[in-house]
Amino acid sequence: MDKWDSCGSSPAFTQPQRMQIQFNDQKHEFNKRPANTGRRSLSRSISRSSTDSYSSACSESSEDESSPRDKLQATSKGLSDFCIKNIQHAEFGRREITIAEQEMPALMILRKRAGGEKPLAGAKVMGCTHITPQTAVLMETLSRLGAQCRWAACNIFSTQNAVAAALAEGGISVFAWKGESEDDFWWCIDRCVGAESWQPNMILDDGGDLTHWIQKKYTSIFKKLKGIVEESRLCVPAMNVNDSVTKQKFDNLYCCKESVLDGLKRTTDVMFGGKQVVVCGYGEVGKGCCAALKALGTVVNVTEADPICALQACMDGFRVIKLGEVVRQVDMVITCTGNKNVVGREHMDRMKNGCIVCNMGHSNTEIDLVSLRTAELRWERVRPQVDHVIWPDGRRIVLLAEGRLLNLSCSTVPSFVLSITATTQALALIELYSAPEGRYKQDVYLLPKKMDEYVASLHLPTFDAHLTELTDEQGKYLGISKHGPYKPNYYR
Amino acid sequence: MDKWDSCGSSPAFTQPQRMQIQFNDQKHEFNKRPANTGRRSLSRSISRSSTDSYSSACSESSEDESSPRDKLQATSKGLSDFCIKNIQHAEFGRREITIAEQEMPALMILRKRAGGEKPLAGAKVMGCTHITPQTAVLMETLSRLGAQCRWAACNIFSTQNAVAAALAEGGISVFAWKGESEDDFWWCIDRCVGAESWQPNMILDDGGDLTHWIQKKYTSIFKKLKGIVEESRLCVPAMNVNDSVTKQKFDNLYCCKESVLDGLKRTTDVMFGGKQVVVCGYGEVGKGCCAALKALGTVVNVTEADPICALQACMDGFRVIKLGEVVRQVDMVITCTGNKNVVGREHMDRMKNGCIVCNMGHSNTEIDLVSLRTAELRWERVRPQVDHVIWPDGRRIVLLAEGRLLNLSCSTVPSFVLSITATTQALALIELYSAPEGRYKQDVYLLPKKMDEYVASLHLPTFDAHLTELTDEQGKYLGISKHGPYKPNYYR
Amino acid sequence: MDKWDSCGSSPAFTQPQRMQIQFNDQKHEFNKRPANTGRRSLSRSISRSSTDSYSSACSESSEDESSPRDKLQATSKGLSDFCIKNIQHAEFGRREITIAEQEMPALMILRKRAGGEKPLAGAKVMGCTHITPQTAVLMETLSRLGAQCRWAACNIFSTQNAVAAALAEGGISVFAWKGESEDDFWWCIDRCVGAESWQPNMILDDGGDLTHWIQKKYTSIFKKLKGIVEESRLCVPAMNVNDSVTKQKFDNLYCCKESVLDGLKRTTDVMFGGKQVVVCGYGEVGKGCCAALKALGTVVNVTEADPICALQACMDGFRVIKLGEVVRQVDMVITCTGNKNVVGREHMDRMKNGCIVCNMGHSNTEIDLVSLRTAELRWERVRPQVDHVIWPDGRRIVLLAEGRLLNLSCSTVPSFVLSITATTQALALIELYSAPEGRYKQDVYLLPKKMDEYVASLHLPTFDAHLTELTDEQGKYLGISKHGPYKPNYYR
Amino acid sequence: MDKWDSCGSSPAFTQPQRMQIQFNDQKHEFNKRPANTGRRSLSRSISRSSTDSYSSACSESSEDESSPRDKLQATSKGLSDFCIKNIQHAEFGRREITIAEQEMPALMILRKRAGGEKPLAGAKVMGCTHITPQTAVLMETLSRLGAQCRWAACNIFSTQNAVAAALAEGGISVFAWKGESEDDFWWCIDRCVGAESWQPNMILDDGGDLTHWIQKKYTSIFKKLKGIVEESRLCVPAMNVNDSVTKQKFDNLYCCKESVLDGLKRTTDVMFGGKQVVVCGYGEVGKGCCAALKALGTVVNVTEADPICALQACMDGFRVIKLGEVVRQVDMVITCTGNKNVVGREHMDRMKNGCIVCNMGHSNTEIDLVSLRTAELRWERVRPQVDHVIWPDGRRIVLLAEGRLLNLSCSTVPSFVLSITATTQALALIELYSAPEGRYKQDVYLLPKKMDEYVASLHLPTFDAHLTELTDEQGKYLGISKHGPYKPNYYR
Repeated sequence: MDKWDSCGSSPAFTQPQRMQIQFNDQKHEFNKRPANTGRRSLSRSISRSSTDSYSSACSESSEDESSPRDKLQATSKGLSDFCIKNIQHAEFGRREITIAEQEMPALMILRKRAGGEKPLAGAKVMGCTHITPQTAVLMETLSRLGAQCRWAACNIFSTQNAVAAALAEGGISVFAWKGESEDDFWWCIDRCVGAESWQPNMILDDGGDLTHWIQKKYTSIFKKLKGIVEESRLCVPAMNVNDSVTKQKFDNLYCCKESVLDGLKRTTDVMFGGKQVVVCGYGEVGKGCCAALKALGTVVNVTEADPICALQACMDGFRVIKLGEVVRQVDMVITCTGNKNVVGREHMDRMKNGCIVCNMGHSNTEIDLVSLRTAELRWERVRPQVDHVIWPDGRRIVLLAEGRLLNLSCSTVPSFVLSITATTQALALIELYSAPEGRYKQDVYLLPKKMDEYVASLHLPTFDAHLTELTDEQGKYLGISKHGPYKPNYYR
Repeated sequence: MDKWDSCGSSPAFTQPQRMQIQFNDQKHEFNKRPANTGRRSLSRSISRSSTDSYSSACSESSEDESSPRDKLQATSKGLSDFCIKNIQHAEFGRREITIAEQEMPALMILRKRAGGEKPLAGAKVMGCTHITPQTAVLMETLSRLGAQCRWAACNIFSTQNAVAAALAEGGISVFAWKGESEDDFWWCIDRCVGAESWQPNMILDDGGDLTHWIQKKYTSIFKKLKGIVEESRLCVPAMNVNDSVTKQKFDNLYCCKESVLDGLKRTTDVMFGGKQVVVCGYGEVGKGCCAALKALGTVVNVTEADPICALQACMDGFRVIKLGEVVRQVDMVITCTGNKNVVGREHMDRMKNGCIVCNMGHSNTEIDLVSLRTAELRWERVRPQVDHVIWPDGRRIVLLAEGRLLNLSCSTVPSFVLSITATTQALALIELYSAPEGRYKQDVYLLPKKMDEYVASLHLPTFDAHLTELTDEQGKYLGISKHGPYKPNYYR
Repeated sequence: MDKWDSCGSSPAFTQPQRMQIQFNDQKHEFNKRPANTGRRSLSRSISRSSTDSYSSACSESSEDESSPRDKLQATSKGLSDFCIKNIQHAEFGRREITIAEQEMPALMILRKRAGGEKPLAGAKVMGCTHITPQTAVLMETLSRLGAQCRWAACNIFSTQNAVAAALAEGGISVFAWKGESEDDFWWCIDRCVGAESWQPNMILDDGGDLTHWIQKKYTSIFKKLKGIVEESRLCVPAMNVNDSVTKQKFDNLYCCKESVLDGLKRTTDVMFGGKQVVVCGYGEVGKGCCAALKALGTVVNVTEADPICALQACMDGFRVIKLGEVVRQVDMVITCTGNKNVVGREHMDRMKNGCIVCNMGHSNTEIDLVSLRTAELRWERVRPQVDHVIWPDGRRIVLLAEGRLLNLSCSTVPSFVLSITATTQALALIELYSAPEGRYKQDVYLLPKKMDEYVASLHLPTFDAHLTELTDEQGKYLGISKHGPYKPNYYR
Repeated sequence: MDKWDSCGSSPAFTQPQRMQIQFNDQKHEFNKRPANTGRRSLSRSISRSSTDSYSSACSESSEDESSPRDKLQATSKGLSDFCIKNIQHAEFGRREITIAEQEMPALMILRKRAGGEKPLAGAKVMGCTHITPQTAVLMETLSRLGAQCRWAACNIFSTQNAVAAALAEGGISVFAWKGESEDDFWWCIDRCVGAESWQPNMILDDGGDLTHWIQKKYTSIFKKLKGIVEESRLCVPAMNVNDSVTKQKFDNLYCCKESVLDGLKRTTDVMFGGKQVVVCGYGEVGKGCCAALKALGTVVNVTEADPICALQACMDGFRVIKLGEVVRQVDMVITCTGNKNVVGREHMDRMKNGCIVCNMGHSNTEIDLVSLRTAELRWERVRPQVDHVIWPDGRRIVLLAEGRLLNLSCSTVPSFVLSITATTQALALIELYSAPEGRYKQDVYLLPKKMDEYVASLHLPTFDAHLTELTDEQGKYLGISKHGPYKPNYYR
């Protein structure tokens, strides 16, 4: 990758901190269903699979009720190794992909820099991610760099059918549609993995379901794998891009800062000015939500368990309270903890009429929904993704997206932010694929700082931002290479 | 430390990342003067010693011109093992210390929690720090916990004489006064170290000068040391508190956010609204400066060498430019890079009349002062810490604190922020002192997350902040102890 | 109105400033169509009628293509003096009205305070406004206070059919539907006005079309009018609520602050962070837009003609430039001037690919659309309310809502903000109706400060805000009544 | 004034609103001392005279204890018609004036535009204002435009002696020094007014004391007056510049936004982050204070009596409470109401230890100081302008500037902001002096919008701001002159 990559000469990727590795150690039992294990990472992906969904700005009508599994379809070139809703919608999907390309400058630069060369020639990438215009740009970038791609969805709701059609029409085998059943979900993954004629040597896995399935049914595949991106099995080298600084800050902080307002407006048309809010959790997501809400004139309170984040919240001007202390008086409660049952029935019993409850954190665990599915409470669906839960005395709370992720369910995610993640994934695949034998062992690696910096630099031209170059003397003074990395690895 | 410390059962301190260790490796040659080495950490401390200073709100008149080295003084109890300006000023210093205590809640809590117990009984702590009301609170806390203290200043300007007097009067041997010469500086350190009757077993060193001196003249002392806090020599265990999250975020981000406005106002009375500014560097210090200046209505531009920080600046709404592109039109240039010669003569030659130039970063290297000490430029001191440098055509730039740290020279640092650092230092001393044999080797350790969290929790009552406790179930779900640590070590 | 109104004893309404009156003087010629006159107020209303529209979050399908004018419909009680799309949708409309009631606290308080009394008994209010859940709450409040209401739409697109159905079902004669033709528009007004059996004695007119029509065809009606709210004819007393402080600040500043983000997100999913924007105009609307965009991390530039507003923009930290100076480099241009042709073809010819152009100001005049309707430019509708205008070289600009008001066309307006306007209108109607003979002459009156304050006070309980009462001594010291008004009339 | 003034052809100044005029009517009794009348405007000026003071960054040592009244001094040219501290300090004062000139661009432009012409030729301006570098720039501008000036101080503390010396040395008769007694104060005014050889025809009066004295002792002077700026006596035309938009917004909103932070830091070194604050009053001053404090991370609560301002506070994201509700828990209380006894003993009795209490509003009336001058409370002066008031139980409140204006007493006011006020005063003097007979009657006039706009435009070059010019067509469309005024008179 020396040609277009300033990271070419970077030292081998560093190992992540001890804690990560131990954490992954804990996940080695695959005989029971992940959903029952209580392990963070897997339960996240499963629950996301079964419930969350990206909403498309132009939602597609589902006039056609037949199951894609029963259909025979072929592309205009006669290919039929795919299973999607309707290949006829490819043209519309293509336009959405084209629009997304404009906001994903780094992947387009990668395509250009590759020129005739094919760093991924021979790579067979099997992927399991959301199927959206943005991931389509990633897949087609991998193809341009020489890889063959084969894909399933990581989520039963999030597939954009027209995009899947455009991908299939373009020659990528896709097995996914919007509104899969749980059975459909695993059927698609199995169709993706189980082809005898096509065995992957790279895996890109958002959530871990694909890796889980391979572990369970096709263990032999692991022997041929050169690496996994996103998920950890320790029988092949894996690269964890989730904890990289670009992901942490850009996907979480900046993205949520924008989408929390958007998601709330689209669903409830609420006026922010003067409203009292509790944001549960002051990690990156919570920080983004609080900053945006404060800027729009809400009075923000924060709950935290971590004293460092709590102190940050204080210094940023937010009251740190326990939810129970203010739940009677607030107009909105937004969860961003990554934890479960942060908002319980005991809180919701005391909320005032019209209080909005939603989740920006992860999965659908933060709000205790089970406690709301009881006989005495009445549910009324007032808009798509908006339920009124009505107490016997007539008091209502406004529950958004049934407690699933507001930003995925009720707003759109800027392509530009997804571009950062997708570029990181592409580079991780290239590095794992082209690394000399022995550079990576059966371990989980953090994306090296240098590569994070490279991803960032590919996105700067969008803002017409001009980097200052260090002089030789300055680099020497700082004790670093003038080409970076510029900060210690833990810098956030 | 089991009694007042929730960290009692914490695992041994983790090693810092590879880079730090290598960095420290590079510092092993002590035969030449550090100022000539170009190595970041040492040059920082030396230059700070020789030039920077804390300013006190009530500056002390220097009516008495005799050298403290020539005076014979004694406390009211007859002790005379100290060397300070004037023991008569102890009462005034005591009042300043009392005021600072109110803003340093965590150290006061430590005093209380210790109760009768003395976790530092037998400890002999030799310190080299600024001598201010805030460090005085730290020293007296260490004393209360059982330690004996002996202290020198790490800076020739920053000592507050009345505070030094109060400390001496209280029984701590202090060797320091405001306005030491370079020779005085090393004389004081030598007096501090060289007492035959008093050999330290712990060192607290802000900047590294004390450790450097011991290395040079009293190497045998190292054998008896149980640990060093702040500085690394690898012949004893050392704990680096500089890179802990509380230091990075609170000392840098939050503190600079407040002090950049304060320092500029006190020196220049400048109106911020509508002014155009360049902030060089968008690390924590730069982020704090930019946020504060933006909030007060300046138009802020940023220069950066690191693409990740550059992208953060973009997302936060700042133009990222090279200094040369805008230097003609801006009203202020503020350096926060930690680098050298960031503002060069070629920039200053093109600044407009009245442009303010100052440094919030580190040391006095960021602005190329040497280039301004030439015959054709006239210097005019218009106020304390404020020079007009005048070009032959009459154009002036307003240089603050001769390029030294604005926040140390021209504003005050909130006691509360210093409290966080001081508490961290106290806990690190206790841990190193009371750790079982073998827990720490000759290496540099980062403060563990758990202890960072403990420091933070001690400061929350000030804000009447209420932490949310995890349930057992939630801790299990997250895969962490419900008592923390709550975040991976690299969380910032 | 002494019972529920703290303004009962307020002095007669003050006359507006000279300028207003003269301005209204200029409008006395009614023989030509207002659209041709170029006079600000009328042209605003006409153009709004023909082009702008409120978008409903749940857009209604237009399955039924027949014209309401050809239908015979009746309410469940057998009434048929109305003309709307479909009376069957009343139930859905009722739910929307119920939701709006929760965000319009002041009108609900007015209903309660009236109790048995009917301050508008005998009043026959003819209205011409948008027909939305929020105006429905106003109409039904007037009814509860004793008035009879008869209503037409002021805009051909903004009527929410289900709401109109609910109003008709509830007994209010409504003549309006979504998607009226120009002919339908005047036909509805005529049906509203021309009923022999029902002659109004009060008029509530948003935009002036109704008054215009009466002036033209039913002049005799003026003799029986007790007053007009919103519009000025000088043959009856009129009250101008448009320039009241609550309208200026709340409708414009706060509302636009929220809706500019919402409208841009819903139409384009644009990421704000790091984008460069020009906001044309720094009046209340521009101030709101700039504040919101700055908070979300855009780099904001401002154009202004008024030096006072320009200086405010400077002090608030925005660059004040001419559009032509930066148009090549920006990502968005947002007009808020109330002027015409602020963005001309000469600007759009130089915009970069993908530049978003939209209008938050008034009417559809600010962007020179005519200049874009030329042969060499291709228009492509990519989403509802979103057009790509494509230059021969392939460069596109993204035009929103065809230059009409973004906040009305592409976002929703918070009910709470509309509540302030509606309450003001209700109080103005009550005052004009119940004022003693002679208090108001044939003139245009500004809403008195006292009544503005009353409207504001009715909205404070929503925020659980607690007013501080002046003591007698404090009132005396200030030289004002302790019950207000508290500020001079020009306070904004 | 046709040459340099775009207002030359402006219509005669409009009368202010009724309320102002009545307000002034109430002030016609001059036989009792104004301090006893409780009338807002006069009591403001008197109390300011006796207590407030501008602080100079470089405070002057008062080595010389003799009274200026006993000294004989002369300028280098032999003039001696003045009475100041020490003419020897003229050179230092001149440098301060020169620095101020750089931040007062509009007055410097006025000097240039006048060229050889002298619009104030023959004018004899008697002034009573603060004597600071900024007012010196105003006086010397008036001189350059042809006027003769004779000046006294409006405040016993605020005179900068060196500046007074420079003015005297430059030929302006000044009667003022820092630290006048009450008797000195009136003696200086009398010396200024009572000169037989020099009778004024114009008055510039900040606070009203000069006018009051003339009314009392030299009524015949009124006959010769062409006008008064700032104060109203109705026996000559007067122009009220206090209520102009530039004064209201810039002097109050923007200036206080900066100085509240500065004043608090300089006196207490308080850290803002996380602190809980009550700001009493949400007018322009309160809005500025709240915005700045919020930006620096404090948790801000607001008290208000006016429901409109209260609603604005809500929409801006502040809790509106009564002081008593939160006084126990807050760290700072800042008054900005213009009212009296807003903070009473009953509040201060309940404040927590260390609570800071200060006043940004007006005069020294807002905090009930009398209630603190009781036997059981101990006062301790801990720094200049900082008192600890100590309750019997040891609890302390930190009182700043003894309740006088924090921004005048403990911070500096940016010259640029003062430039706006001074330019307005200069233009008002020119207009009154050169107006044709009969344009102004014995009444109080508001500065016309047009002239406000002119003042603003003179300050734009400082920010390199570029105004957009209206086209003829646009002016016609808006119904205004393309040269302004651009907004109705009440626009703020």
